[in-house]
Amino acid sequence: MTIALCPGSFDPPTNGHVDVIRRALAIFDAVIVGVIANPSKDPMFTAQERVNLLQEVLQGVDRVKVESFEGLLVEFAEARNVGAIVKGLRGVGDFDSELQMAQMNNHLSGIETCFVATNPEHGYISSSLVKEVARLGGQTDRLVPAEVQTALDLKVSR
Amino acid sequence: MTIALCPGSFDPPTNGHVDVIRRALAIFDAVIVGVIANPSKDPMFTAQERVNLLQEVLQGVDRVKVESFEGLLVEFAEARNVGAIVKGLRGVGDFDSELQMAQMNNHLSGIETCFVATNPEHGYISSSLVKEVARLGGQTDRLVPAEVQTALDLKVSR
Amino acid sequence: MTIALCPGSFDPPTNGHVDVIRRALAIFDAVIVGVIANPSKDPMFTAQERVNLLQEVLQGVDRVKVESFEGLLVEFAEARNVGAIVKGLRGVGDFDSELQMAQMNNHLSGIETCFVATNPEHGYISSSLVKEVARLGGQTDRLVPAEVQTALDLKVSR
Amino acid sequence: MTIALCPGSFDPPTNGHVDVIRRALAIFDAVIVGVIANPSKDPMFTAQERVNLLQEVLQGVDRVKVESFEGLLVEFAEARNVGAIVKGLRGVGDFDSELQMAQMNNHLSGIETCFVATNPEHGYISSSLVKEVARLGGQTDRLVPAEVQTALDLKVSR
Amino acid sequence: MTIALCPGSFDPPTNGHVDVIRRALAIFDAVIVGVIANPSKDPMFTAQERVNLLQEVLQGVDRVKVESFEGLLVEFAEARNVGAIVKGLRGVGDFDSELQMAQMNNHLSGIETCFVATNPEHGYISSSLVKEVARLGGQTDRLVPAEVQTALDLKVSR
Amino acid sequence: MTIALCPGSFDPPTNGHVDVIRRALAIFDAVIVGVIANPSKDPMFTAQERVNLLQEVLQGVDRVKVESFEGLLVEFAEARNVGAIVKGLRGVGDFDSELQMAQMNNHLSGIETCFVATNPEHGYISSSLVKEVARLGGQTDRLVPAEVQTALDLKVSR
Repeated sequence: MTIALCPGSFDPPTNGHVDVIRRALAIFDAVIVGVIANPSKDPMFTAQERVNLLQEVLQGVDRVKVESFEGLLVEFAEARNVGAIVKGLRGVGDFDSELQMAQMNNHLSGIETCFVATNPEHGYISSSLVKEVARLGGQTDRLVPAEVQTALDLKVSR
Repeated sequence: MTIALCPGSFDPPTNGHVDVIRRALAIFDAVIVGVIANPSKDPMFTAQERVNLLQEVLQGVDRVKVESFEGLLVEFAEARNVGAIVKGLRGVGDFDSELQMAQMNNHLSGIETCFVATNPEHGYISSSLVKEVARLGGQTDRLVPAEVQTALDLKVSR
Repeated sequence: MTIALCPGSFDPPTNGHVDVIRRALAIFDAVIVGVIANPSKDPMFTAQERVNLLQEVLQGVDRVKVESFEGLLVEFAEARNVGAIVKGLRGVGDFDSELQMAQMNNHLSGIETCFVATNPEHGYISSSLVKEVARLGGQTDRLVPAEVQTALDLKVSR
Repeated sequence: MTIALCPGSFDPPTNGHVDVIRRALAIFDAVIVGVIANPSKDPMFTAQERVNLLQEVLQGVDRVKVESFEGLLVEFAEARNVGAIVKGLRGVGDFDSELQMAQMNNHLSGIETCFVATNPEHGYISSSLVKEVARLGGQTDRLVPAEVQTALDLKVSR
Repeated sequence: MTIALCPGSFDPPTNGHVDVIRRALAIFDAVIVGVIANPSKDPMFTAQERVNLLQEVLQGVDRVKVESFEGLLVEFAEARNVGAIVKGLRGVGDFDSELQMAQMNNHLSGIETCFVATNPEHGYISSSLVKEVARLGGQTDRLVPAEVQTALDLKVSR
Repeated sequence: MTIALCPGSFDPPTNGHVDVIRRALAIFDAVIVGVIANPSKDPMFTAQERVNLLQEVLQGVDRVKVESFEGLLVEFAEARNVGAIVKGLRGVGDFDSELQMAQMNNHLSGIETCFVATNPEHGYISSSLVKEVARLGGQTDRLVPAEVQTALDLKVSR
């Protein structure tokens, strides 16, 4: 049985993230969604809020588990007996830094990273752009799951 | 059990190809190496020669099978009950065309493509560059497996 | 009144091409679709066939005209009093060669090129990939307009 | 009549910005230069200073208007009845993020973005590099209009 | 004393090529311009014609020598005691294949490749685009040296 | 005699940096390693610590000198009579910004920048990734020279 790890900040989870998780489930036996507790930029949602949102969004989906983690990604992956890290590739923009990260993680632990092509319709969706649009009062309801939209509305209206 | 398909022309197989096949074996339960019988450019080696070379190179490696195919990649993948197509990504150069191909294959069949980062040491090795160097009399023995070097020497000296 | 020129080989026209033409019409007063009569690669369809296909596909669309041309793109553009050349940008792959071409055309004639972002759903569709899939017996009916599919079926079955 | 919107921080305006505005004027009937009042990074010049600098630089140029705006770009564009957003493309570096932004803006409002190729001579000029060079005492007078150079000298010498 | 090698097909030499050669001369003690006698694509000019054109264009320039060669680039470089290969980088388009070639040449011989940034004004000039424009009757006199323009006119008018 | 300048933050020096310095020494008569005293991001090591680390790492290497500098890179280069700036190119990611910087430096001073291809094995090593891994408790001893590892352990354990 091969477990895949889908890591990310998920601040907040978008339709693009859900698409990558579903693709990982189509390939692997089980998926752990690994929420980076303390990303480099100050998150809008706490680690617990991001875990809760993902659990709501993935409710009823089999073979998937959501957890937050601190420290090195590869140590978390080794502790969970992960067979591959799965990342979505949207475009050429983050390709180089993602390749660098994948080679570093392979150097540190021997774990492979699988890049899957995201649905082209989601190519322009990123968490940071979603937050920017929401803060400026734009509509984001076709960019994120309904549960996330509700949480986003609450954060922004405060 | 998830079967991965590593497709390519393998004209001839290089150390980079072997690296990708080994990475696919580290992630998936079994691997089919799918040799494109009639690639768009005239191959140096026949489909049968390329299958034979890969079988020699992979002798003793478990869970791997080499086959050539004609027609649509996704039809071959469906006929073999493949769970994912695995491709190596060397650099940004072929990224766009590979992404385009992956999205087309997903459109045609629903099959996912997993891109794995190749060993950076093999990043500059491609079959066409190996053939060009060999034709001009350069040393390629650290770029291809020993069995391939022998076959390449024979082709070039003719 | 500003006339835009949408140049291309259109061998055959795809849903992506139609998307770019519609975007050009949304911005400019009129659009000339300029079919390159003799592209560098041997076309599957004759210049006349490509013009006819585009006219069928664009039937009923106002403010658009289809013409084939030979020789320099900028000379055709000048003869038609074109205000801007419009090209679709799918990904980073052709970006550099498109930018080079745009700067060359501007050097030769002073005419500007406007790049429009294509619908992300059409990002993986190219005429050459459509032809390759059709030749290998794959389904292309969601990639090209119905009129083109009929013509493609005829060409391939011959 | 089609109005184009050239948005940006213009902190400060460079020769590259002026080049893009002139290209937009060559294609469209009128141009609004839209100054983002509160860019994500702390600007060197206030929104009013940037509007004033652009007005000085564009003095005597017909069919162009300079305004600052807050909030969503597409709401400002809709309020001004804009037919297309015009952006300059210098190189492949910002291509992906610009494409993402263009697709997001099209998703939010239906407004198209036209990318124009900048004069290759201005390809290496960016506002942030100009500010860095000026702060370190380098010559920037061939990179920005004379009016901007005067203002930059004042800011830096303080 | 360090000798630099500027290799290429030079079919025909352009203003961009001359720019790279001059930059190599500004850095190194001497420059050999190495004309690839039999490039992969059929050349418009013979090897001897291309050597002659470069010699005319570089007449009066000190410390530079033009030679054609066959076989492996690195063998020619070793035979001439070359300290570094110098290539111009125009844009991101050929970057990956140039990097791959540089790493292969370093693997084969230990010789380093230095990439120099070309004058941005020449970024859109390539030999193949020059030939295409000339064949279609366009003006190329600001893209190539005067000696080359004369030779190009003769070839095209035949 | 041509002196090359290898500029950088070196916060801390990595095996990739040492590789670039050795390549510069293979091409040029002498090399100055220029440590940017005050980089835009807060450094982990002081300018003096970074100079000391580089001197330890390069102990016994002839024709190389380490210095820190403030202000414009090209002014430092002119003061030291530098013939070329040498930078390593790892991938396409920083290519555009490096090209922009090289063209700006050439505009300001006429000094050329030579980009050398780094050893592909070091392609995924960057100072910032090394610091991130070290802070999270990962092994970095095959990514940096032994002297740097010792210093990094001290910084991180504090």
